[in-house]
Amino acid sequence: MSYEGRNVLVTGGLGFIGSNLTVRLVELGAQVTIVDSSRPGCGANPCNIEPVADRVRLIPLDIGEAHQFREALRSSDVVFNLAGEVSHIHSVEAPERDLDINTVAQLRFLEALRRERPGVRVVYAGTRQIYGVPQYLPVDEAHPIDPVDFNGVHKYAATMYHLMLSRSGHLDAAVLRLTNVYGPRMALSIPCQGFLSTFLRRLILKQDLEVFGAGSQLRDPVAVDDVVEAFLLAGASPSLPSRTYNVGGPEALSLGRIAEIAAAVAGGVGILYRAFPAELKAIDIGSYHTDWSRMQRELGWKPRVRFEEGLACALAYYKDNVHRYLDPASPNGCSMPEHAGKRRRLALIPA
Amino acid sequence: MSYEGRNVLVTGGLGFIGSNLTVRLVELGAQVTIVDSSRPGCGANPCNIEPVADRVRLIPLDIGEAHQFREALRSSDVVFNLAGEVSHIHSVEAPERDLDINTVAQLRFLEALRRERPGVRVVYAGTRQIYGVPQYLPVDEAHPIDPVDFNGVHKYAATMYHLMLSRSGHLDAAVLRLTNVYGPRMALSIPCQGFLSTFLRRLILKQDLEVFGAGSQLRDPVAVDDVVEAFLLAGASPSLPSRTYNVGGPEALSLGRIAEIAAAVAGGVGILYRAFPAELKAIDIGSYHTDWSRMQRELGWKPRVRFEEGLACALAYYKDNVHRYLDPASPNGCSMPEHAGKRRRLALIPA
Repeated sequence: MSYEGRNVLVTGGLGFIGSNLTVRLVELGAQVTIVDSSRPGCGANPCNIEPVADRVRLIPLDIGEAHQFREALRSSDVVFNLAGEVSHIHSVEAPERDLDINTVAQLRFLEALRRERPGVRVVYAGTRQIYGVPQYLPVDEAHPIDPVDFNGVHKYAATMYHLMLSRSGHLDAAVLRLTNVYGPRMALSIPCQGFLSTFLRRLILKQDLEVFGAGSQLRDPVAVDDVVEAFLLAGASPSLPSRTYNVGGPEALSLGRIAEIAAAVAGGVGILYRAFPAELKAIDIGSYHTDWSRMQRELGWKPRVRFEEGLACALAYYKDNVHRYLDPASPNGCSMPEHAGKRRRLALIPA
Repeated sequence: MSYEGRNVLVTGGLGFIGSNLTVRLVELGAQVTIVDSSRPGCGANPCNIEPVADRVRLIPLDIGEAHQFREALRSSDVVFNLAGEVSHIHSVEAPERDLDINTVAQLRFLEALRRERPGVRVVYAGTRQIYGVPQYLPVDEAHPIDPVDFNGVHKYAATMYHLMLSRSGHLDAAVLRLTNVYGPRMALSIPCQGFLSTFLRRLILKQDLEVFGAGSQLRDPVAVDDVVEAFLLAGASPSLPSRTYNVGGPEALSLGRIAEIAAAVAGGVGILYRAFPAELKAIDIGSYHTDWSRMQRELGWKPRVRFEEGLACALAYYKDNVHRYLDPASPNGCSMPEHAGKRRRLALIPA
């Protein structure tokens, strides 16, 4: 798998996963162009790419404005398509904003891409959220699609674009359906990148962790390094026997167990069990863990980083960089200012 | 099943299926309000509701402008949601127009509806197109979702809205996935309501029917009267054991056989077999027929009208009304004038 000298486009490259991927691609010798609009609430942070900033080209536009960077599309050898809004909570507050970011902009981007660079390999960052409440565990790619919130609907619409345009020969896409990802460069100031972001923040601030309900729901956290490896494999594989691949962690852990491990790794924090807030209950999906055997079988991927290890690595990163992630003036904020006026009351996870 | 005195909202009520439903609802004593923007290309025709025009309220707005008819939402007992663009060909020509009509407008409509009339029964006109190329026949509701064009993606996004908002208790929706529907009030001037519309037009004009390829693909045409009955049952059923129901015809017929029956019923036309145009081949799905046993089991519905019968009935309707459907100045046109300038060359079915 060689990325040496290849032109790689990373949408959402200032975000959590996109920036980790970008840093790795630069290490591998790729010529990386990032497209990222730094839309508030979506997790972009220019600090994320600091180690490689002078070796990366940044196009500060929305992917929906693809007519303004046609040449970058035309010269790309591989496209990693990670731009989007991942917050389920935001999507409940402002569904049309989520539709705009996750579906409308993707349609414009993919239509431009298929015209400028027909048949190009695209790897799209999908989500396990589209499966909704699991009907069986572990969840494989044949599981019915049944999203429980607008974010899931809109991400699935974008997934269908990728698959449909691949079937008709316009693109050559792989869709990775990601479980809960964690690691360095995750946004911390905002409750919109999932409970692992909230946990990380509290560990860093030496605040007790909060677990809602009995904490018995299973999750399979996957380290961002493993996810980056999955993207790299999907981007460089000569063929894609399937187009859709689940990407999950090495072990299924209860939320309570995850909190225990986290508290032990960080030291000095406790765990509080609290009643499940009704607003979160409505979009909770119970237990989930991933059957990623297709990805292993077809592309040779498996998750390697155990949760203790990955969490220790993340904490080490934030130790040196915490001011870049917890500064309230940082562009990492989750305020959705363009909708602040319309915002409905919704009890968020207490900060 | 009583609709006597009930307030019923029909979106897309000037279109083919919506108008047949409206006429029937008025006969049953319902107070019908239609919301229809008469957007060119989507099949609206004011002549469709002529027999009941003085007993129906018409709101000439797009469903996405739902904030302008809140009171109509608030007073509705049942909503039949048929507004949309059904043309797969249009969606290939102008994907963003299709997204706007079939997804963005639906999101705005459903968000307004759930606020103004929480928990209301909604019956959405879905499509079998979302299944894509059948992996088995007949196709039941558990068949994987795999649309082959933008129209399928966007209709499925709207389907997910209905199901997701029902799961969370905001609406009480049923989704009917319709196979090829035919009958009185079908648009004829436009090649955008499927091959049965084209066949009808040619029968009326005494032009030979054209069959692409060998004509061996199966379809199960369903008469609009049967479809209307399915909507009425789904709208009035005390409970919906499932939310998604396939609606199909009484028999699987090859396209060649459909053409033979049509030619025999109409008399005086022949059948020409032609090579499949590449542009249509790309969105063709091969054979399809419906497993509608869930609808029969749970809601007591089955298709009753055989194709010969239904076609004779449709031809009788057009005999008296043909000038309202073939007049080139009619609002039935399929020209998509708002996109005429951008239109890409695409060989349509010869008119």
